[in-house]
Amino acid sequence: MTVENRDVPQPVTVLGLGEMGAAVAGVFLASGHPTTVWNRTPEKAEALVAGGALRAATVRDAVTAGEVVFVSVKSAAAASRLLEEAGGALAGRTVVNLTDCTSGEAKETGRLAAESGADYLHGQIMTIAPALGAPESVVFFGGAESVYDRHRPLLDLLGGKGALVAADPGAPVLYGMAVHGTMWGILNGFLHAAALLKDEGIELKRFLDHAGPSLTALTSFLPSIADEVDRSQYAAQYGALRHHLPSIDDLLRESRARNVADHLPAHTLFLVTQAIADGHADDNYSRMIDYFAER
Amino acid sequence: MTVENRDVPQPVTVLGLGEMGAAVAGVFLASGHPTTVWNRTPEKAEALVAGGALRAATVRDAVTAGEVVFVSVKSAAAASRLLEEAGGALAGRTVVNLTDCTSGEAKETGRLAAESGADYLHGQIMTIAPALGAPESVVFFGGAESVYDRHRPLLDLLGGKGALVAADPGAPVLYGMAVHGTMWGILNGFLHAAALLKDEGIELKRFLDHAGPSLTALTSFLPSIADEVDRSQYAAQYGALRHHLPSIDDLLRESRARNVADHLPAHTLFLVTQAIADGHADDNYSRMIDYFAER
Repeated sequence: MTVENRDVPQPVTVLGLGEMGAAVAGVFLASGHPTTVWNRTPEKAEALVAGGALRAATVRDAVTAGEVVFVSVKSAAAASRLLEEAGGALAGRTVVNLTDCTSGEAKETGRLAAESGADYLHGQIMTIAPALGAPESVVFFGGAESVYDRHRPLLDLLGGKGALVAADPGAPVLYGMAVHGTMWGILNGFLHAAALLKDEGIELKRFLDHAGPSLTALTSFLPSIADEVDRSQYAAQYGALRHHLPSIDDLLRESRARNVADHLPAHTLFLVTQAIADGHADDNYSRMIDYFAER
Repeated sequence: MTVENRDVPQPVTVLGLGEMGAAVAGVFLASGHPTTVWNRTPEKAEALVAGGALRAATVRDAVTAGEVVFVSVKSAAAASRLLEEAGGALAGRTVVNLTDCTSGEAKETGRLAAESGADYLHGQIMTIAPALGAPESVVFFGGAESVYDRHRPLLDLLGGKGALVAADPGAPVLYGMAVHGTMWGILNGFLHAAALLKDEGIELKRFLDHAGPSLTALTSFLPSIADEVDRSQYAAQYGALRHHLPSIDDLLRESRARNVADHLPAHTLFLVTQAIADGHADDNYSRMIDYFAER
């Protein structure tokens, strides 16, 4: 079952037709790939079938119809059940698992696929469903380079900024979590701040007119922080933790004075106070990695 | 004491010569302004005096020497004490208070200055000391437009991106807090994520090579979130809270599996779970403003 130099588009299978699975199948259909779909509740396939997709009655039939089998379901447990149902039909095929899970679960699903004789890639989609397939959309993949390279033309259809990040199928999951974790950090920090501005009656648009460039610049610090963490070198000449402390305390007192949730600044103050007590007052904020790396 | 159309540079005073106060005095000295300095421990003035600054023996002498009096001390209480020491010498001058504090404290210091017959601006410096005076450096000011306009050439020396954001002297403080609060959000989110990547042995530089653009894109969501909050319109077609929930749970489980601090994802999960229980599953993340706006 080789796919090089073929003239007809490679047949693909999509298991799971939630919002993201349906978008994946839609991308392959639009590119002319014979696309077989399966979903636990078959009604979800109807729009795709009307668009030219083939509906399989069983997981095993679906897997048999495709050379590359994309899995997009609600949990790692659901993905494992599908691989078990497919059983021997997986041999010689490639499973591309797009299911949200932990890195350990991605590795485990990869082991299950290998036991059935299938190649395995884990894909972490970094976009909302309607942006799937766009040139700027990012998908992180983990798995063997030979498998990724073999299927690259197909995988690139999902997003123009797809990339193999590691041989480990758990790595793209961690990459996705790292971006999303940073995203929730910025969202929570901004919305907490927005609550303060709103309390004073300041329109956020007006705030952004002045502060937009300062906010956009925040991500520009990340490479130097990453470098300090990689080298375990935290000494700072300016912007050290002792400079952060009074400003964090101001934010906490402001929150309390306005009866706005004080949880975030209180947590930051707690961590930074601890770091300073441990002798790190003259270190950069990158030193705080130590306080996240241990529970 | 008018300052328009003068040929000789305006004399200025700087009270407080910590890292930032010394940098402020240095900027004015470098621009040829007669600069009088005062610090509670006079030794801190020595480098500036060697550079041409005049050292005043008392706060009152320092204030008398300058038309514009910059204050950069450790706390609002310290700033108030200085204004009390200056007393009647402040009449007809302008106080530009650069001291970190809460918005309520900025308003209160403004009231004290007004009682002494001085005009008042509060300035929130958004850069580290060595970047003071650079064309890209941001300073938010709050106070009367007429006072700001009168001293604009002087104030612009502190940073090329200075701006009057409101008549309220507390507003620039809130602007600064909003930027810094978002900054601690992104720093904490990123360092928590970095702890997961490190635990797997993934170098952060390697992660950024792939994920850098995804991280940089995160701040691009802020204007639409601000707009949703300003309009109290939270309905989402994609990326709703119900889509965030399982990914937050994955991050929490990953953190616990690796013995990495679980505080941040646990807090986010708690808030989002509460919002969904309140019937907001189909709303965008901007809805979370409601959960920060109340303690």
